[in-house]
Amino acid sequence: MKIGIVGLGLIGGSLGLDLLAQSSESEPNYIWGISRSPDTCKQAEAIAAVNIASTNIQNIPDVANTDIVVICTPIASILPTIQALAPQLPQNVIFTDVGSVKAAIVEPASKICQQFGQGFVGSHPMAGTAFQGISAVERNLFQNRPCVITPSEDQAALAKVRSLWQSVGMQIYEASPEDHDRAVAMISHAPVMVSASLIAACQQESDRSVLQLAQNLASSGFRDTSRVGGGNPELGRLMAEYNQSAILRSLYTYQQSLQSVIKLIEQNQWAELEAFLADTQSDRNFYVE
Amino acid sequence: MKIGIVGLGLIGGSLGLDLLAQSSESEPNYIWGISRSPDTCKQAEAIAAVNIASTNIQNIPDVANTDIVVICTPIASILPTIQALAPQLPQNVIFTDVGSVKAAIVEPASKICQQFGQGFVGSHPMAGTAFQGISAVERNLFQNRPCVITPSEDQAALAKVRSLWQSVGMQIYEASPEDHDRAVAMISHAPVMVSASLIAACQQESDRSVLQLAQNLASSGFRDTSRVGGGNPELGRLMAEYNQSAILRSLYTYQQSLQSVIKLIEQNQWAELEAFLADTQSDRNFYVE
Repeated sequence: MKIGIVGLGLIGGSLGLDLLAQSSESEPNYIWGISRSPDTCKQAEAIAAVNIASTNIQNIPDVANTDIVVICTPIASILPTIQALAPQLPQNVIFTDVGSVKAAIVEPASKICQQFGQGFVGSHPMAGTAFQGISAVERNLFQNRPCVITPSEDQAALAKVRSLWQSVGMQIYEASPEDHDRAVAMISHAPVMVSASLIAACQQESDRSVLQLAQNLASSGFRDTSRVGGGNPELGRLMAEYNQSAILRSLYTYQQSLQSVIKLIEQNQWAELEAFLADTQSDRNFYVE
Repeated sequence: MKIGIVGLGLIGGSLGLDLLAQSSESEPNYIWGISRSPDTCKQAEAIAAVNIASTNIQNIPDVANTDIVVICTPIASILPTIQALAPQLPQNVIFTDVGSVKAAIVEPASKICQQFGQGFVGSHPMAGTAFQGISAVERNLFQNRPCVITPSEDQAALAKVRSLWQSVGMQIYEASPEDHDRAVAMISHAPVMVSASLIAACQQESDRSVLQLAQNLASSGFRDTSRVGGGNPELGRLMAEYNQSAILRSLYTYQQSLQSVIKLIEQNQWAELEAFLADTQSDRNFYVE
């Protein structure tokens, strides 16, 4: 397969690394890459994340027989990037992306691709580390991690994208953009706001000695609960901006859950509180091991 | 020193283990233990967490020259345990505890001890693992972990309790019971309710396919944010019951923080949301590394 990767950060670079590592004589992969940064292009070539990389697609030889182009840019750049590249790529090429929202991407991206006789299948490979950029790339980053792909009438395109992510070890789930966005709002986007609000609430303490003591005593419980609230602010903003209705829906439901816990505590309903916590203890097992 | 440990679970057992391991000819420690379970007593003796253990203090020889008694029972049993043991122990013995709340314990415990010419200093050694019971004990469990002790007019008692926790490697912070309870509500008790409410909110999803997808996609972010909400329900209930006003205070502040984040998202205030998340990212460093 000939695969283009646009955006050579952690996800794009790690994808290229695995695809080139699995390339064989009988099933060779050829990977071209595009990044805004000439240094990143050089580094991606040096570590064999790509065969060739450039800041400009016109410097890439023989793009004409490319099978799949994977857009690995931040969410806000996905549509403009497809818009810019589609006219320079052949008919029948398939675009996919790696964005953590799908409804805001899939319909407009499909429309752009259609204009050029090209296909689009939305992807959300859920893999990552605390680090970013080409210097953070990892072999087997995607192994056993879930990847959502969105439905398409073009069964051949769907099969190619599915097999791309399967080849790097991902578990594939097909879901509508709307279902994807609601599920991801629940377990990924809303938790960022829930967690960030906890840090902000602690900082509201006006008694300096209590605040200082809290900071000294904070340990693994606070570390874990606050972790995603201390993450990349730009990413958090983009999640909310591009998944606004689903994240609000999740946060409203969350407010109600929290309010009922507060009511139990206010009204000394200790047995009910313990039963509620026994439910959350057991329900958590549905989500994580 | 001659030290009694009442309640031979993870905390009591690990404390005994470290105290006996550091016992030397020049500074010998003698540890007696009490547990409700004869099996636990045997096991504590077998692993050298105590020199002798029994279900009944009357079976412990020479309790008369005990220096400190550490009550390592669940919160609800601390006061009844002191009430039962104080008449059977000498004047001048010092009681301390390991409860995660202090205002509900320190004043009544001090009053009981005073009646018998004994001292009380509240302690909260903040150490633990995901496991419970004598079979979960660990050497060096307390090493470099924070321990709050509450003020006392009895400077000798305070010094003895401070030195007990220092001897197992703890960082000591002296704070009033009220300041302790507010700080711990912020960074430990409220996060349990914040985290549990997240699990409960996800379970509210009525669309089975979205719920199933969310459960399949949940990963490290959800794992961390939900961890303390999936903890021991009895412990969660006791935190709320014995630290009711401080935990409610923290949760009200939390509700306001969450509400302002929701408002930013509702009103498309993306730059403000990003600035808010940049603050929480940087403020988190005051609490955890």
